[in-house]
Amino acid sequence: MSRELLQHPFMSRAALEHFTTPALIRAMLAFELALADSEEQHGILPAGTYLAMAHHLTPEVFDAVALETDTALGGNAAIPFVQQAKAALPESLRQWYHHGATSQDVLDTALMQLSAQRLPVMLGLVERSLDALAQLMRHHGDTLMIGRTLMQQALPTTFGVRAAQWALQLDEARLRLSDIAIKGLPVQFGGPVGIHGGLPGGLPLMETLAQRLGLRAPLLPWHTNRQPIHALMTALDALAVAADKIAGDIILLAQGELQELAEPAGEGVGGSSSMAHKRNPVRCTLIRAASRGIHGHVTTFLHAASQPLERAAGEWHSEWAALIESQQLLEGALDQLAITLEGLEVHIDAMARNLAATHSSDARAQLGSAHDQIARVLDHLGR
Amino acid sequence: MSRELLQHPFMSRAALEHFTTPALIRAMLAFELALADSEEQHGILPAGTYLAMAHHLTPEVFDAVALETDTALGGNAAIPFVQQAKAALPESLRQWYHHGATSQDVLDTALMQLSAQRLPVMLGLVERSLDALAQLMRHHGDTLMIGRTLMQQALPTTFGVRAAQWALQLDEARLRLSDIAIKGLPVQFGGPVGIHGGLPGGLPLMETLAQRLGLRAPLLPWHTNRQPIHALMTALDALAVAADKIAGDIILLAQGELQELAEPAGEGVGGSSSMAHKRNPVRCTLIRAASRGIHGHVTTFLHAASQPLERAAGEWHSEWAALIESQQLLEGALDQLAITLEGLEVHIDAMARNLAATHSSDARAQLGSAHDQIARVLDHLGR
Amino acid sequence: MSRELLQHPFMSRAALEHFTTPALIRAMLAFELALADSEEQHGILPAGTYLAMAHHLTPEVFDAVALETDTALGGNAAIPFVQQAKAALPESLRQWYHHGATSQDVLDTALMQLSAQRLPVMLGLVERSLDALAQLMRHHGDTLMIGRTLMQQALPTTFGVRAAQWALQLDEARLRLSDIAIKGLPVQFGGPVGIHGGLPGGLPLMETLAQRLGLRAPLLPWHTNRQPIHALMTALDALAVAADKIAGDIILLAQGELQELAEPAGEGVGGSSSMAHKRNPVRCTLIRAASRGIHGHVTTFLHAASQPLERAAGEWHSEWAALIESQQLLEGALDQLAITLEGLEVHIDAMARNLAATHSSDARAQLGSAHDQIARVLDHLGR
Amino acid sequence: MSRELLQHPFMSRAALEHFTTPALIRAMLAFELALADSEEQHGILPAGTYLAMAHHLTPEVFDAVALETDTALGGNAAIPFVQQAKAALPESLRQWYHHGATSQDVLDTALMQLSAQRLPVMLGLVERSLDALAQLMRHHGDTLMIGRTLMQQALPTTFGVRAAQWALQLDEARLRLSDIAIKGLPVQFGGPVGIHGGLPGGLPLMETLAQRLGLRAPLLPWHTNRQPIHALMTALDALAVAADKIAGDIILLAQGELQELAEPAGEGVGGSSSMAHKRNPVRCTLIRAASRGIHGHVTTFLHAASQPLERAAGEWHSEWAALIESQQLLEGALDQLAITLEGLEVHIDAMARNLAATHSSDARAQLGSAHDQIARVLDHLGR
Repeated sequence: MSRELLQHPFMSRAALEHFTTPALIRAMLAFELALADSEEQHGILPAGTYLAMAHHLTPEVFDAVALETDTALGGNAAIPFVQQAKAALPESLRQWYHHGATSQDVLDTALMQLSAQRLPVMLGLVERSLDALAQLMRHHGDTLMIGRTLMQQALPTTFGVRAAQWALQLDEARLRLSDIAIKGLPVQFGGPVGIHGGLPGGLPLMETLAQRLGLRAPLLPWHTNRQPIHALMTALDALAVAADKIAGDIILLAQGELQELAEPAGEGVGGSSSMAHKRNPVRCTLIRAASRGIHGHVTTFLHAASQPLERAAGEWHSEWAALIESQQLLEGALDQLAITLEGLEVHIDAMARNLAATHSSDARAQLGSAHDQIARVLDHLGR
Repeated sequence: MSRELLQHPFMSRAALEHFTTPALIRAMLAFELALADSEEQHGILPAGTYLAMAHHLTPEVFDAVALETDTALGGNAAIPFVQQAKAALPESLRQWYHHGATSQDVLDTALMQLSAQRLPVMLGLVERSLDALAQLMRHHGDTLMIGRTLMQQALPTTFGVRAAQWALQLDEARLRLSDIAIKGLPVQFGGPVGIHGGLPGGLPLMETLAQRLGLRAPLLPWHTNRQPIHALMTALDALAVAADKIAGDIILLAQGELQELAEPAGEGVGGSSSMAHKRNPVRCTLIRAASRGIHGHVTTFLHAASQPLERAAGEWHSEWAALIESQQLLEGALDQLAITLEGLEVHIDAMARNLAATHSSDARAQLGSAHDQIARVLDHLGR
Repeated sequence: MSRELLQHPFMSRAALEHFTTPALIRAMLAFELALADSEEQHGILPAGTYLAMAHHLTPEVFDAVALETDTALGGNAAIPFVQQAKAALPESLRQWYHHGATSQDVLDTALMQLSAQRLPVMLGLVERSLDALAQLMRHHGDTLMIGRTLMQQALPTTFGVRAAQWALQLDEARLRLSDIAIKGLPVQFGGPVGIHGGLPGGLPLMETLAQRLGLRAPLLPWHTNRQPIHALMTALDALAVAADKIAGDIILLAQGELQELAEPAGEGVGGSSSMAHKRNPVRCTLIRAASRGIHGHVTTFLHAASQPLERAAGEWHSEWAALIESQQLLEGALDQLAITLEGLEVHIDAMARNLAATHSSDARAQLGSAHDQIARVLDHLGR
Repeated sequence: MSRELLQHPFMSRAALEHFTTPALIRAMLAFELALADSEEQHGILPAGTYLAMAHHLTPEVFDAVALETDTALGGNAAIPFVQQAKAALPESLRQWYHHGATSQDVLDTALMQLSAQRLPVMLGLVERSLDALAQLMRHHGDTLMIGRTLMQQALPTTFGVRAAQWALQLDEARLRLSDIAIKGLPVQFGGPVGIHGGLPGGLPLMETLAQRLGLRAPLLPWHTNRQPIHALMTALDALAVAADKIAGDIILLAQGELQELAEPAGEGVGGSSSMAHKRNPVRCTLIRAASRGIHGHVTTFLHAASQPLERAAGEWHSEWAALIESQQLLEGALDQLAITLEGLEVHIDAMARNLAATHSSDARAQLGSAHDQIARVLDHLGR
């Protein structure tokens, strides 16, 4: 796929390498084995079943190419995955494999496992940006610049305040994602119509399974209750907005006629195929493109979030790419943002020059709560 | 505007009558007067200014038609609003009016005041639906029906579980909005570039003002930090999804060949202009249309949520209708939902008949955690 | 509704006054009377029925307030509209009123009538902008300015070329709408399930009716074939993009540090509530906000364009506001665009000054096909 | 990437194998070589340059992995692509490589080449569906079924009419894409700021280049005039809507209680991981998921279609994935649609049984223009 050149550049490499087909297979297998283990613990499966199963089922057992082909026939990857696993098991174990589960249990849980592992990485990238912003706030509390409204020079402010505003917005968005990370992403386990049909003690079993996988136990299975995904997707979007805001401001302030800011210089970064003199704001461009892609995925999801009866016919299926790619794009954007802010060039002279166009010596008299604002945000961020 | 026939039917009447031009004028005026009062309290304005101002400025002073015309010239309603107010004030008071504020302070705060008053109403409507659902859960814990996945008959469940799933989804969405309501919507006050330029003690003043208006004091002004609106808009959308899910299920289960559910009957409700025998699921149709409108508004907002520098040129402006109409549409949908659930017709015989198509006497054996699920949700809802 | 201050400013006044409830009633009535006339002509109704009906049914007969209330009960405005009309007719005429029609026939046709009347107005506004742009191309073929890529100074170009690019984009978008206007918007007439049940000669009757109303006769009724609306909505969006592109460029080039362009000056236009010295690009701001609103409406529509079976349950209903408001917003944007381009201030000195920052005397040598491009676009536009 | 299991199943295999990184490299190289050839023909490059260049530059010269890494540094794939090519050329040829071009020229043209090759394939798949629908219309002109409005039984129709409606909608959408295919997708060639700076005869050169590559010559370069992409993306969306409509209707009519239609049976298609008796409408589910993904991509594009000044900073970059994946998804959906319609199971008995629930012996009397409609559509389709 031309994705390598057309989409990957916007994504974090680590996130690309995290959500692979082998990783998905491992996560689906982890679900099935944890389920067997939990069911054995609850006395539903004969003792020893889990270990016997785990002995036969390693990720290598699965044929990824056949999985891909057969997914189109079954509608989701868990269907051929279960078939392949059963084929690899001795007759006696087959009946206990995927016992009481449905394909959506497998796939939702696998996606939640993989996603849960990305949240700390994204939050860590945000911390790096917040650290860099705290530095900028500290250094530039007295760096005068002109504030601009409706893209016109308005009144004086400081670059420290601009950085404080960026930091606060980023932190507010961060909180939504970190709340979700702390609460935990939910396991999915309900069986075909969500009521653990045929299983005794379905809800306690769901809890054991969740614990076993390090996921949150939801109150009920959530096959067509996509509120957990809604909260996650919109939290990702909030961070995309915050990153986009900073990137957009940097692009505007880096315009040649303003030159108040510049992305960090770097070998081979921001060159043009035709104009040697140019330095393009490439990192911010990548952030803004990633952010747009996330909004598109969120839009797809919002329109698919209401899902019919006990299981959807298309709505759920359209979630998968939206969910995974939003994370890959956001992590890419946050990565670029951290690098950009850590090396941001602040041109104090240019700020002074531009300010002088509409404001002269009285600028400092108009700073109002500028210092207080910076102090307050530093305090709030504990930095 | 043909809105009366083409949009109002999806909106709650109360919400339509809440967000009127006179109400907006009153809210903008409340901001300005509270600002004068707060500034007087902080020693910025001469004693007596607030009362003198309040004496001259009543809502009747404003010419709504001129406001509309002049808004197009200035870009937002606060600009002509301030001009009209100043014209109505004696010379001596003019300098103190809108002192240290900017038009976005006025308009954002007015919209937050008006919105804050709607949140309890929406949450109250949700409670009515949750009450009705608790009733349904209690009555239908043993009402067998077929669960349907990918729109095909799958395995038995009970209508009580379906109701429990609806309730839990609605409650999860409710929580997002009620968290926002408890935290409070923020006042906006920062002056032209957000740093209270020219004012001593801008941040404490902002806090006094917030308290005076019953709004939350944010850490900083948020002219181009739209995270509070992002959280609000996506919380509204979460409720729209929950309402849409229930409405969608009812429409599907009310199909003539299934007839498991029907909207409450009512004089003149659901008739057809050409077929006397028909009973259309009108309320659920209105809910689904409203929900789609909300998704569209949220999409507009997400793409406009990153706003440049100290004040936006178009992005902020596109928020207003999105924010207000999303509330009017959601309140309309929640209103219809409460009525629908309070009077929902549950056809137990049809459920039994349809179940019999694929499942016979063994259905009860397959109910798994059905009873436990209902008990758990009732307990969770405190009902 | 606070719409007067929060939405109307983005809309054209003429379009606001065009799509009113009385206008919608008149259009629905025009459908019904034209239907009676056509059916009489085809020998389906007794001679004289049309005139008798027209005698009793004037727009005044209808109670708009009751229509609004009852629309929420029936799901669309045509249902109470037909009831009110029948109540106003003598017993003998009632059976012939709305004969063979369904409510969607009435409402779709009314919306197509009202929309068809707006297309020439919008296209006329585009012509005004194209005229203004042709002037700019002619005057500024030699006006050097710096071209900017990724928001950085790149290489020299001329303002004439920028204007030519704007004009060509606007013209390409115009063509999509004018193709639709030339082809005509379709009448809707199919009866309850779209096959003119109970009527002899349904298709020829549909053609007579179309002719009578000045609409296009489609091949078939299109109750759940929304391709005509898809083509119309996306054509409106194409124009919104073209207008937004021009407005966005003007805002960027009007930044204080560039000052290459300015919106036309005007009494009371672009003032600030707090900074007397500022001149905000208000018209372009309004255009950009309107364009965002249109994208949101189009998004709503795209997700609702696939409609189930013979008639939709919510999808169709969410179209109405999207369709009408997109037109009102676009007409507003085109109106502002024409005014802006007709009075656009072009600051040649500033262009020269900014160009000099990266390019000196060699600029003219790098103009390549600049003159040819302008000549080609003028020729293409026939100007 | 987990895309193999989570996204590929919705895409056509042929389209996946068409848009690969090697294919993109070949297309970019085709641009550069055709440019050299054209420039040589126009006397801009020394005779023999093209052949010499072609001799050194084969697709194998390029290092795809380095391209991917360096794309993130430069912002688009053409920048490292040009660097790698120059490194592979002898010193004397380097100055003539990419002569007068900019990176967007390379990438836009490459994407247009690759896209142009997919249009006939998509249109061919539509023809297969239209053939199948013509068959269904012919066979089922007398197959009575109940028409359903707002998901309720309404009045009788025939399955032949339903098929005619599907066909007409598909054909209307087809026309938009085939108009674009006939007109041709445009070459991109304008150099850094779009005016062929430094080149004599830029416009004629652009025409030679277009001809050489089998693309359309636009009037002007279109770096920030994305109307051609707007027309293409919305045409793709129109087909997605048409496919989704058919798939949605089939899913509804295949519900167990209706059983009027079924997807073609097939080994391994539509099975469940937990319920052996079930037959899921998998193909229609895949179509609906693909269609939702396309709407999301189109939404991203609409919000990015207005691009600043001479070249965008993020907007253009967000187009790439949207454009390519929309094609891959649509081709996948059209593929599934053709297979579904070619093997669609029509259950006449079930249609009769369901019809009987509300209509008895009088059904044939209510068919109105049903036969005429089918004849008209067959005639229109030339089938």
